[in-house]
Amino acid sequence: MHRFQHVAASAEDVVAQNLMQRRLGQLTGTCFQRCVGMDAINALFSVTHECDQESGTGYHARFLEFVKLVQTENLVVGGAMTDPKGDRGKGPSGQKDPDLFLRVVERRPDGVVVRGAKAHQTGCINSHWLLVMPTMRLKPNEKDWAIVGAVPADAPGLAYVYGRQSCDTRSMEEGQGDVGNVRYGGQEALVIFEDVFIPNERIYLNGETAWAAPLVERFTAYHRRSYVCKSGVGDVLIGAAALLAEYQGTDKASHIRDKLVEMTHLNETVHGLGIAASHQSFERPAGNFEPDGLLANVCKQHVTRLPFEIARLAQDIAGGLLGTLPSAADLAGLVTGPLLDKYLRVKEGVRVKDRARALRLVENLTLGRNAVGYLTESMHGAGSPQAQRIQIERQADLPAKKALAKHLAGIDE
Amino acid sequence: MHRFQHVAASAEDVVAQNLMQRRLGQLTGTCFQRCVGMDAINALFSVTHECDQESGTGYHARFLEFVKLVQTENLVVGGAMTDPKGDRGKGPSGQKDPDLFLRVVERRPDGVVVRGAKAHQTGCINSHWLLVMPTMRLKPNEKDWAIVGAVPADAPGLAYVYGRQSCDTRSMEEGQGDVGNVRYGGQEALVIFEDVFIPNERIYLNGETAWAAPLVERFTAYHRRSYVCKSGVGDVLIGAAALLAEYQGTDKASHIRDKLVEMTHLNETVHGLGIAASHQSFERPAGNFEPDGLLANVCKQHVTRLPFEIARLAQDIAGGLLGTLPSAADLAGLVTGPLLDKYLRVKEGVRVKDRARALRLVENLTLGRNAVGYLTESMHGAGSPQAQRIQIERQADLPAKKALAKHLAGIDE
Amino acid sequence: MHRFQHVAASAEDVVAQNLMQRRLGQLTGTCFQRCVGMDAINALFSVTHECDQESGTGYHARFLEFVKLVQTENLVVGGAMTDPKGDRGKGPSGQKDPDLFLRVVERRPDGVVVRGAKAHQTGCINSHWLLVMPTMRLKPNEKDWAIVGAVPADAPGLAYVYGRQSCDTRSMEEGQGDVGNVRYGGQEALVIFEDVFIPNERIYLNGETAWAAPLVERFTAYHRRSYVCKSGVGDVLIGAAALLAEYQGTDKASHIRDKLVEMTHLNETVHGLGIAASHQSFERPAGNFEPDGLLANVCKQHVTRLPFEIARLAQDIAGGLLGTLPSAADLAGLVTGPLLDKYLRVKEGVRVKDRARALRLVENLTLGRNAVGYLTESMHGAGSPQAQRIQIERQADLPAKKALAKHLAGIDE
Amino acid sequence: MHRFQHVAASAEDVVAQNLMQRRLGQLTGTCFQRCVGMDAINALFSVTHECDQESGTGYHARFLEFVKLVQTENLVVGGAMTDPKGDRGKGPSGQKDPDLFLRVVERRPDGVVVRGAKAHQTGCINSHWLLVMPTMRLKPNEKDWAIVGAVPADAPGLAYVYGRQSCDTRSMEEGQGDVGNVRYGGQEALVIFEDVFIPNERIYLNGETAWAAPLVERFTAYHRRSYVCKSGVGDVLIGAAALLAEYQGTDKASHIRDKLVEMTHLNETVHGLGIAASHQSFERPAGNFEPDGLLANVCKQHVTRLPFEIARLAQDIAGGLLGTLPSAADLAGLVTGPLLDKYLRVKEGVRVKDRARALRLVENLTLGRNAVGYLTESMHGAGSPQAQRIQIERQADLPAKKALAKHLAGIDE
Repeated sequence: MHRFQHVAASAEDVVAQNLMQRRLGQLTGTCFQRCVGMDAINALFSVTHECDQESGTGYHARFLEFVKLVQTENLVVGGAMTDPKGDRGKGPSGQKDPDLFLRVVERRPDGVVVRGAKAHQTGCINSHWLLVMPTMRLKPNEKDWAIVGAVPADAPGLAYVYGRQSCDTRSMEEGQGDVGNVRYGGQEALVIFEDVFIPNERIYLNGETAWAAPLVERFTAYHRRSYVCKSGVGDVLIGAAALLAEYQGTDKASHIRDKLVEMTHLNETVHGLGIAASHQSFERPAGNFEPDGLLANVCKQHVTRLPFEIARLAQDIAGGLLGTLPSAADLAGLVTGPLLDKYLRVKEGVRVKDRARALRLVENLTLGRNAVGYLTESMHGAGSPQAQRIQIERQADLPAKKALAKHLAGIDE
Repeated sequence: MHRFQHVAASAEDVVAQNLMQRRLGQLTGTCFQRCVGMDAINALFSVTHECDQESGTGYHARFLEFVKLVQTENLVVGGAMTDPKGDRGKGPSGQKDPDLFLRVVERRPDGVVVRGAKAHQTGCINSHWLLVMPTMRLKPNEKDWAIVGAVPADAPGLAYVYGRQSCDTRSMEEGQGDVGNVRYGGQEALVIFEDVFIPNERIYLNGETAWAAPLVERFTAYHRRSYVCKSGVGDVLIGAAALLAEYQGTDKASHIRDKLVEMTHLNETVHGLGIAASHQSFERPAGNFEPDGLLANVCKQHVTRLPFEIARLAQDIAGGLLGTLPSAADLAGLVTGPLLDKYLRVKEGVRVKDRARALRLVENLTLGRNAVGYLTESMHGAGSPQAQRIQIERQADLPAKKALAKHLAGIDE
Repeated sequence: MHRFQHVAASAEDVVAQNLMQRRLGQLTGTCFQRCVGMDAINALFSVTHECDQESGTGYHARFLEFVKLVQTENLVVGGAMTDPKGDRGKGPSGQKDPDLFLRVVERRPDGVVVRGAKAHQTGCINSHWLLVMPTMRLKPNEKDWAIVGAVPADAPGLAYVYGRQSCDTRSMEEGQGDVGNVRYGGQEALVIFEDVFIPNERIYLNGETAWAAPLVERFTAYHRRSYVCKSGVGDVLIGAAALLAEYQGTDKASHIRDKLVEMTHLNETVHGLGIAASHQSFERPAGNFEPDGLLANVCKQHVTRLPFEIARLAQDIAGGLLGTLPSAADLAGLVTGPLLDKYLRVKEGVRVKDRARALRLVENLTLGRNAVGYLTESMHGAGSPQAQRIQIERQADLPAKKALAKHLAGIDE
Repeated sequence: MHRFQHVAASAEDVVAQNLMQRRLGQLTGTCFQRCVGMDAINALFSVTHECDQESGTGYHARFLEFVKLVQTENLVVGGAMTDPKGDRGKGPSGQKDPDLFLRVVERRPDGVVVRGAKAHQTGCINSHWLLVMPTMRLKPNEKDWAIVGAVPADAPGLAYVYGRQSCDTRSMEEGQGDVGNVRYGGQEALVIFEDVFIPNERIYLNGETAWAAPLVERFTAYHRRSYVCKSGVGDVLIGAAALLAEYQGTDKASHIRDKLVEMTHLNETVHGLGIAASHQSFERPAGNFEPDGLLANVCKQHVTRLPFEIARLAQDIAGGLLGTLPSAADLAGLVTGPLLDKYLRVKEGVRVKDRARALRLVENLTLGRNAVGYLTESMHGAGSPQAQRIQIERQADLPAKKALAKHLAGIDE
């Protein structure tokens, strides 16, 4: 039986996504970007269903057609949520320039025309479709910003401005000796919507401002625990550090072993909290399963800290050559090659070239191209640290905890 | 159908134990000691089964009878594992005094006589039975120490030496005003076995040295994630701190709110990792479900750190009066009472007496009676921090991680 | 030559006070309370001088007489600053009860009568004199609260309400086996001023509201780096942990050694920052030297964190017996004594009694009597953590740092 | 009067070097490399003097001539200490290839010829002279490796292999819009000595193996506190983060302010511990002042941690655009420029171009060119973290601390 009508049809499905994410992190050592679209689909699945129930709209069936298309044709979907936001103190209708949040600028019988931009769109360049969604709670008068729809990634009016990242040009150099990760790298772009048309059948919310906040909250409940992928990338970094310890003959030193244990401990913390959120999924009326919001936020909050400490420990184990390693060209040079081979050799049977590649991989993940994904995106993707703290505060249920304390302290006000 | 033949019959059962543990932590604000026996039963369930399969012994059926008895009569079982150990550099057979690990000193047709001691026995005083188990890997020649059996807590030859703990005498003072937690407190004892007889039907391993290590490892896989209980105690401490912030009028201050968020974040980390280990349980041939060992160790490792930071933050929020609060007797004194009422009053409508009780509860949990359970036992119960690190190292699978790194770095040795 | 006319007459003097404080911490393992009075004297030395210069008052000469008396007769002076404060959102004149900040209630030709209380007065019971000072910035209309004066500790109208602390009654038990620190312990009290008379010659500010804020700020510049004493107490705790490692035969284990290194590293951090603040002292017009305010606050901020981590590591090294150790009475008991001697023995040549005493000292410093001084007072003494953060923010000079960044980024607005 | 005969002639001189280092860090935002030579000169000043006293050698006077030259002609001196080391488990004489530690390969009447390499030579390319020194304790039979001498940076036989660093090619791109720090960047090289001649008058140790260890230890006592420079670089990073908060309108948010406070707190910790070590300098018989070794190591140990946390907080404050910012070329593009100007604008009066430059500076310091100096070099320069821990352990004086504990615990063995 086809499963394309179902999204995450059980807690196991939600956990399975996490396991896949870790595996892909292990195999790519970078952000592979699939989660945003998947998480958007799951969130929209329940929101369109409940909106229809409440208001008699017909979004859910329409949306299922899109999901069918995606699953049948195996398409990559980018979830386009983050608006540029302009003045942080104001919402969409308060901005001087109303386009700073993507909005409907024209309504036609067969669809709408939208204008605006979506920032920080990881992997959008390699998506087939973009799912446009509002980025925050909307006021009742902000109907033009309450638009959800799917657009093909090459729709007329769409423009992509590619972001520059640390060490981005190395992948364009001849040879791959200094690139670190010889197989994969991430990318980010600003997507500009210069009056892009969305036909009616690809619209899944249109003016229902009340559903913007639930959509964002449900999306982040999925997405903040999708960062389990970083424990897959962490596996690569731990592996690279362990490899260097082996190459350099320090792998038996107690402090090195202890640092590898600490890295593993922190890395599994991210993984464990992600799958805990997934395992604790509950069923929405639409039939899909949604992760526990508190644990998802706790997971993501750790992601804004622990990869940085893992990266620090990796730099510790890697040794000073991490910052001073000559180029692959010099390593292979007619004159310099033999000299470097002589002086950078550490242990019988370990090639200098292999040591150099392992060092470049640590550089790639802690300073270079994929450090942007492993560190900066871990910090800000799916919401910056403070966004998680706000959610954790909301779900901390302090009144219940105070009641526990009163009971045990014998306080009877 | 009765469930008493089953132990943890599904991953859901293992999770359910965790949820019960957190709830009991919330209701008692202390260690309530049920987990050790439960975890011992689960571990022995599979070990006796596999030992029987391997060696044709008949321990499993015998053990089921004991479990039936426990479940039918609703008995509390203490898991007695930790031997005094003497010289840490040596195992049982290497000690000058062989009794430093509990051992069989006499073998009779109807059973064995054991001698030795079990240290750090939390809650043993309120147990009905004790399950005696070896504490570490045994060598083939250490058969006398490979003994597992059940003894009633009042068996002849058993002696309990009660430990002294911080503020232990306060609960014996008149009134309960300074005790902090007016309902519950923990206790620990050294249990001395001066030639205690165990009849054959209560013996579940006897000389099978090879099963000592698996027993310990399986027990700790359950037990290290049982420390989810501390997140229940953490709820009480967070509640007490939040209550003091409310009483003292600081609950709107951004730094106070942020500290409560941090406490919650850390507290849920312990909970999340415990239930992650439980959700990821796998089935043993005996039919019981056993938690994921790596995540269980990661959970417990956090328990050796995070409650200390939560306690520190609670002391921060509580304010300096935590260390200088007059006695309940002075608060109620004829002369001192009104003066203290005048000078310790903070906010309209908050009684000084209630503020004092909330402060005493924070003292109880961070310095006093239940700090022993919340901090010291969190450190050492179910194995000291280094014990978890050894397990984490064993399960880190560094060769697989190195292979990932080589693949992405393009290293082809 | 007598030095009694000089206070801290050079940066070396300020450093010397720190060295003395660390030494006394080492010798007592507790708060020995001398610093508050010394720091108050130094702060008042410059404030009275500058107030006189500005307003033609005659406080400085008068104050010198008091300092002479103190130094000649070798008196202990308590610095009484912290008012109860009542509603934290309001200052002295905004409180319902004006006595919540100590104030002048009667003005006579020969002096003033004050009423109010001073909270958290560490060691006041063993002081000869108290120096009363305002606790915060005052408004021009709050003249009655702008009072500084010296009162003998046994002045009529003074009452002390002793605070209850963790394990306080142990020192009243027979024997000293369970007390941990057999020589010293701290104490705190609430001091109530029920209409205490201060004669004119003992008044050093009287209505000069503008000088309240500088007085507090200067006092804290001295006092927040006086917490170098805690590195002396830390030495005792590190020593106790190292002793237990030796007794228990774990002192060669790499993780134990590494923890002792970490404890030392953190402990010296407190010391180093304190003396850095002292070394960087500058001269006030009165001729006394005052520590660098930013470094003093950075020092104290660490004191609110690092002793907690040192205590955690000490509990780690101490082992589980820390929480389960039988009483000294049981250790010496006719029946229990030999049994405990048998089972708690760890290493050839180490008496169980000595091991127990070392454990009780760690308990004393991390949970018991002197944990109040080492942890809770480290948190709140000389101002709670947030108070230091406010000062650090004030002295961070962000505009200058932004200018550096603009220069290097090539930003020319 | 000329000071060129004196090195650090007082503790104030040692402190003054620190203050200069912080200032240069502020002005360059990178490693400016002057410290290594200065620290080498100070260490050699006392070592040559004491060696002469002990053995009647004439190194000190010779060395003073070199110092005079350096000071008169205002030369930059690189301190070349770190040998490649090969197999970490073995010393110089144990290596298969004896050149893995720089050594004398030929002795002539007028000098010696050395061969080998010095790794991780920060800033050597812009030095006039190199001071060659052994890197570790030597055995009596390792005389050929006990060589100290000065060589001009362009001496025959010297070769420099430049290291590749994160984002190194950006400074070679047209325009400076993406470079982050438009003024300065660091560099590192491997210096290969292919039979370099050192004349007798430039030799300052030659075969005195016993002085290798003191030389290294004294050098690190200076050098580990020279990392105070990183607090100058930290000032730039704090400034850049504060600037971005201002540009983005988040500078009033309490969590942003708190993060800036934390960054300042950590940054001043490095500074404070450095100058504490310097203030506590003691005089060597040669007349120079040498920093306190314990505090210097504590300072450097923090440098291996705190800049990483400061960098993490800077990335937090900077926001997600840090990882997705378009290139300067796109920002200035005919088509893209106006679009980016529209969508990346945040606050009235702030130019997108300036925001971009501030972001590039944060990228430069946390991922890019100068992150190598601010993070990787902070980790490994002047010895990796474990090197400091070994020194801290040596200077912890645990026996004295144990004695304090025994005294207070009442232990009388």
